[in-house]
Amino acid sequence: MRPKLAEVAHIADVSEATVSRVLNGRPGVAEATRRRVLEAMGDLGYRDVPSHASRSGVVGIITPELDNPVFALFAQSLQTHLASRGMLPVVCSATSETVNEQDYLDHFLTSRAAGVVLVNGRYAQPHIGYAPYLALREQGLPLVLVNGIHDPSPLPAVAVDLPAATSAAVRHLVTLGHARIGMLVGPMRYSTSLDMVRGFRRAADRLHVESDEGLISETVFTFEGGRAGSAQLLEAGVTGIVAANDLMAAGAIAAVRAWGGDVPGDVSVIGFDGTPAMSYTAPRLTTLRQPVDRMSAAAAALLLEAAAGNGVSQTQVFAPELLVGRSTGPVPVGAGSR
Amino acid sequence: MRPKLAEVAHIADVSEATVSRVLNGRPGVAEATRRRVLEAMGDLGYRDVPSHASRSGVVGIITPELDNPVFALFAQSLQTHLASRGMLPVVCSATSETVNEQDYLDHFLTSRAAGVVLVNGRYAQPHIGYAPYLALREQGLPLVLVNGIHDPSPLPAVAVDLPAATSAAVRHLVTLGHARIGMLVGPMRYSTSLDMVRGFRRAADRLHVESDEGLISETVFTFEGGRAGSAQLLEAGVTGIVAANDLMAAGAIAAVRAWGGDVPGDVSVIGFDGTPAMSYTAPRLTTLRQPVDRMSAAAAALLLEAAAGNGVSQTQVFAPELLVGRSTGPVPVGAGSR
Repeated sequence: MRPKLAEVAHIADVSEATVSRVLNGRPGVAEATRRRVLEAMGDLGYRDVPSHASRSGVVGIITPELDNPVFALFAQSLQTHLASRGMLPVVCSATSETVNEQDYLDHFLTSRAAGVVLVNGRYAQPHIGYAPYLALREQGLPLVLVNGIHDPSPLPAVAVDLPAATSAAVRHLVTLGHARIGMLVGPMRYSTSLDMVRGFRRAADRLHVESDEGLISETVFTFEGGRAGSAQLLEAGVTGIVAANDLMAAGAIAAVRAWGGDVPGDVSVIGFDGTPAMSYTAPRLTTLRQPVDRMSAAAAALLLEAAAGNGVSQTQVFAPELLVGRSTGPVPVGAGSR
Repeated sequence: MRPKLAEVAHIADVSEATVSRVLNGRPGVAEATRRRVLEAMGDLGYRDVPSHASRSGVVGIITPELDNPVFALFAQSLQTHLASRGMLPVVCSATSETVNEQDYLDHFLTSRAAGVVLVNGRYAQPHIGYAPYLALREQGLPLVLVNGIHDPSPLPAVAVDLPAATSAAVRHLVTLGHARIGMLVGPMRYSTSLDMVRGFRRAADRLHVESDEGLISETVFTFEGGRAGSAQLLEAGVTGIVAANDLMAAGAIAAVRAWGGDVPGDVSVIGFDGTPAMSYTAPRLTTLRQPVDRMSAAAAALLLEAAAGNGVSQTQVFAPELLVGRSTGPVPVGAGSR
């Protein structure tokens, strides 16, 4: 029951020729118009992607909690890229309070899914490692990992370069004159935290700023975690804070204000992830953006290769991108001598 | 391979007695501690919820795009409540560019899922209506609807009271002295838009402020949509803007600034949804919060009843809650005479 071009054209308020152009991917259609046409097609149940009948299988996307906007963004982007390659993607957010990653992996194994993409899965804790995942692959479940990679991954993976991200953050602050910089990290049992601290220390050494224990605050990956973890750094007299994600950075901004300070007048704050949802902070966050769309496209391609039996085991590493907002600024006068 | 209490206690840095207290749901544990224990249990694969073997079935959660934080929040909250009742929830975000709602419904029907919860599904367009969903139920797929309800729903449903939300928003602005108030809505083919405009007009009539066509701007449900749709309202000389969601409200704030104005000095802006992710806007958003957690708990309960063959068809309506932030303030002096 395919709706007619005319219906789509009517709802989108464009000509049928324009609808046809969008459908066939031809140029000459403004992005806003293209989206309106796609939206109208979606509303009408129009399919320009393979219908379920021709889809080659269900792919599970297992992520941490979706209330962190970066995981919602990965979920959305992975879905888009897997669906455009003919798969039927479903998202499972494995949180400690509800369903375990293992529950979902068992489900996809027994229901003979075409594969699973894991984002920051339990493997990201080096003491757990890759062995349980290799066992699943032996049993016939193709897997691709996104982020949280430590040691060479024996499974196909994509990852943002975390040491490069924190190095770039420190460099940005040092360029602005900051000499006393603190780092907010998540629990140190995660490889992501270890990687970030490595980048932080490496840049600090190179740029001749301190990076002793008191300047590294271990907390949890949330707004509240960022707020609570900032107290130690403010007491240590930092003028710049590098946060392990944007939620923690928003928490750091709240902490600086509660302490009576201004961002960036007294303390500069820099985040990590760069999701659109976090671009509305006050002041607009300076952050290192993960190229989520390109990483998701690469993960989808790797999964299709793995599902086709091509046993690649490579990790594609992506560089983060510095987005300069208004949460970082020059070091306050006189602070350099502390 | 259940990890020992001692391991959880070690990782969470609490006593074993505390872990035991959390496990058994006893009082006397601070929320932060409780979360740390649950996180440690999750990391160690500890299960205080039924394991997959005893789960009674897969439940699909179909939502619009996850890059709107309210849909990510519903997805997360529905997962939590369904999992705690022994189901295995998976999330499908049906976007026009990738997989259709119909693709997912077909999948859950043919794979004999225990049921599906739809959030703001296609039924929210009155010209589509409930018939396709009733047909699915006849074929044995239990369904529960969340939001977007119009006319009495023949299927079990939960919904936030949208006319009440926009009425409360207008009342809040009138109390602050505003007399020229505009409304940013999504496409009028959605029942949510119709409901919001109904509440807007009803409150405007009662409170003797205008609500003519020029004060209602139809746009799309995004930040960009809110920004673009605000131009018409600013030209019409509004001092207050009621937005259909928080993303659009953030867009309206950007539009007021681009136009050279201050929020709330020149124009007050009020949103809808009230997700934590949107509480970091500059200035902090005044908004009407959907009680997402209570709505999700009710939806999970309805789904279990439907799956058990209890053919309830009722819509539970939830009141929104006004959260007063800093994006609304008194009408500027002299604006009342416009």
